Amino acid sequence: MKSGVIPSSAVGQKINEWYRYIRTFSVPDAEVLKAEIQQELKHMQHDSNLLLYYSLMEFRHQLMLDYLEPLEKLNIEDQPSLSELSRNIDSNQADLKGLLDYYVNFFRGMYEFDKREFISAITYYKQAEKKLSFVADHIERAEFYFKIAEAYYYMKQTYFSLINIKNAYEIYVEQETYNVRIIQCHFVFGVNLMDERNFEQAARHFKLALNMAQAEQKAQLVGRAYYNLGLCYYNQDLLDPAIDYFEKAVSTFESSRIVNSLPQAYFLITLIYYKQGKHDKASEYHKRGYEYAKETDDADYAVKFEFLQSLYQDQPNEEGIERCFQYLKNKNMYADIEDLALEVAKYYYEKKWFKLSASYFLQVEEARKQIQRSEGLYEIEI
Amino acid sequence: MKSGVIPSSAVGQKINEWYRYIRTFSVPDAEVLKAEIQQELKHMQHDSNLLLYYSLMEFRHQLMLDYLEPLEKLNIEDQPSLSELSRNIDSNQADLKGLLDYYVNFFRGMYEFDKREFISAITYYKQAEKKLSFVADHIERAEFYFKIAEAYYYMKQTYFSLINIKNAYEIYVEQETYNVRIIQCHFVFGVNLMDERNFEQAARHFKLALNMAQAEQKAQLVGRAYYNLGLCYYNQDLLDPAIDYFEKAVSTFESSRIVNSLPQAYFLITLIYYKQGKHDKASEYHKRGYEYAKETDDADYAVKFEFLQSLYQDQPNEEGIERCFQYLKNKNMYADIEDLALEVAKYYYEKKWFKLSASYFLQVEEARKQIQRSEGLYEIEI
Repeated sequence: MKSGVIPSSAVGQKINEWYRYIRTFSVPDAEVLKAEIQQELKHMQHDSNLLLYYSLMEFRHQLMLDYLEPLEKLNIEDQPSLSELSRNIDSNQADLKGLLDYYVNFFRGMYEFDKREFISAITYYKQAEKKLSFVADHIERAEFYFKIAEAYYYMKQTYFSLINIKNAYEIYVEQETYNVRIIQCHFVFGVNLMDERNFEQAARHFKLALNMAQAEQKAQLVGRAYYNLGLCYYNQDLLDPAIDYFEKAVSTFESSRIVNSLPQAYFLITLIYYKQGKHDKASEYHKRGYEYAKETDDADYAVKFEFLQSLYQDQPNEEGIERCFQYLKNKNMYADIEDLALEVAKYYYEKKWFKLSASYFLQVEEARKQIQRSEGLYEIEI
Repeated sequence: MKSGVIPSSAVGQKINEWYRYIRTFSVPDAEVLKAEIQQELKHMQHDSNLLLYYSLMEFRHQLMLDYLEPLEKLNIEDQPSLSELSRNIDSNQADLKGLLDYYVNFFRGMYEFDKREFISAITYYKQAEKKLSFVADHIERAEFYFKIAEAYYYMKQTYFSLINIKNAYEIYVEQETYNVRIIQCHFVFGVNLMDERNFEQAARHFKLALNMAQAEQKAQLVGRAYYNLGLCYYNQDLLDPAIDYFEKAVSTFESSRIVNSLPQAYFLITLIYYKQGKHDKASEYHKRGYEYAKETDDADYAVKFEFLQSLYQDQPNEEGIERCFQYLKNKNMYADIEDLALEVAKYYYEKKWFKLSASYFLQVEEARKQIQRSEGLYEIEI
């Protein structure tokens, strides 16, 4: 995301706060928040859903003022209580209330998702789902299915992610102007299918995404499609086609100056060249990738490039490798430890350094246990 | 299951066929199937849900006959078509049709589940869910949630398994007479929580199950609770408490002659004694466990006992180990290969046979890829 651009989920969360003030008739606080949000809208990433939510809340804000105004002429003892007033508004505007309840939960879900609190995100999305019947617009329903599919993907609930992304996709394809979302749907299909090692179907989705992204001339999405295709082959140990696609991703990102996406792609190209024993090529990509990581303040990838350096020296630098793993542990990045420890174990196996190899395999096991543990934070109380 | 006892899912599937004949007014075929099913009911495992389904179908069978009877007095040209007749019955008996549609799909789901076709099972369960509103009875709804939770557990969709088992549990606890189902709910909670390595909560559920099973004097469930508690500690590498619980499971099963459950428990006790270097104890349990496996024609466990024999000799018998893995591969039992290969890898690591250790770690990786592949057979077509 470009720096200075405010994510819509953060603004959504602020509108939720605004709603709380409106519901308690806290006019001054509500006015302040409304003004703040109006400012933030100018710097927000485009999100038509959020703009709709804002308009609804503006309308609800006005309702609050309209209900309060005539009361000023009444004596205190004749004024209805605020909770009575609130009930009146809710029952006269049941559809509006339903819609607002939907958006409160939907944007709260997005907000939790952005914090990578997936379980919490799903809990709010499920609340939103109960009010989905108030959402008449098909596209808004599709947005809902899309968001929930994303969250299930990160929770590794593959089956449900696929069901929901299919729901979203089937709505978007009926429309003329939702090609970007259709491309993103193909990505969600593809990454889920890769989790199941169904690479053939995954590649099919990424290629569909690629063709559409090229037609739409969206460099970010073209690059992402190439990158995903690269992953698809890399995960099958088909290193040459993987390199080809990663190279294409890199040149797409570079020619459009999408610098943030570069360290990741450079990292995998570098890793593959090392695995193939092409040390000159590897050094070249290592150097450029490391520079991009520094340029974009991407500390995680900077550390990972240092890891490659440590591993693929003539005499691997065990301390350097451990330093990298310690960094990842401190950040709870156990999925990365799993991947990298497995690379080390396999590399040492090839080198016939079996003792070290086996000890890294044990680290892979340890990382997996940590991952299972962190996936299982579903709060089910009986 | 006792031999000679027919699983209710098989009878359910036969009632589904019967329904197909009824719907096409194929009276002779319907009569034959009805008679067959009446015979099978006498040898079926008890299932009150299925008996209800049978009664509904009997009623529907009679409806078919009642509708056909007056037609015999009419001239051919005045008779309504069979599809007209069918529509009449459906619209006059909409609730009955809804219920039957529910049961058709529910029992088809169970049937697929028993064949370990979990994706297919879920597809039918989801069809059933659409008709769940016709099911007024709370307990029948609980049965539905329970079944779907079971299927999601095997599909490793932990989050959804937990949600559904919670739904089922909350209905059963409201009743007086569903303690067996409540115990089974605790098992489903527990095994899901073990998948998330949340051993504390898992053990809590197994202990609740144990207390209830003892109060109910159900030896099978008492033994199963002990066994699950054993697993819970075994998975944390807490071998002494694990042995204690497995021993209790064994003595419960033995004193009630529940022989089928014995090889599994003996296997883990034997394995633990070998891991602890207690070879005398291990040999003793190995001998008895192997005999139980032979007695119950449990070929899988017979092979696994042979595996232990091969591994824990003074000089491990690599050929014997490979023979076992080949057997498991032929039966697509990759989860077992994963577990056993990991045992070998860790054992050889301790023995400082690092080359062999690393090569078994590689087999663990291979097995995992196979498991991911076989989990991912969700047929999503776009």
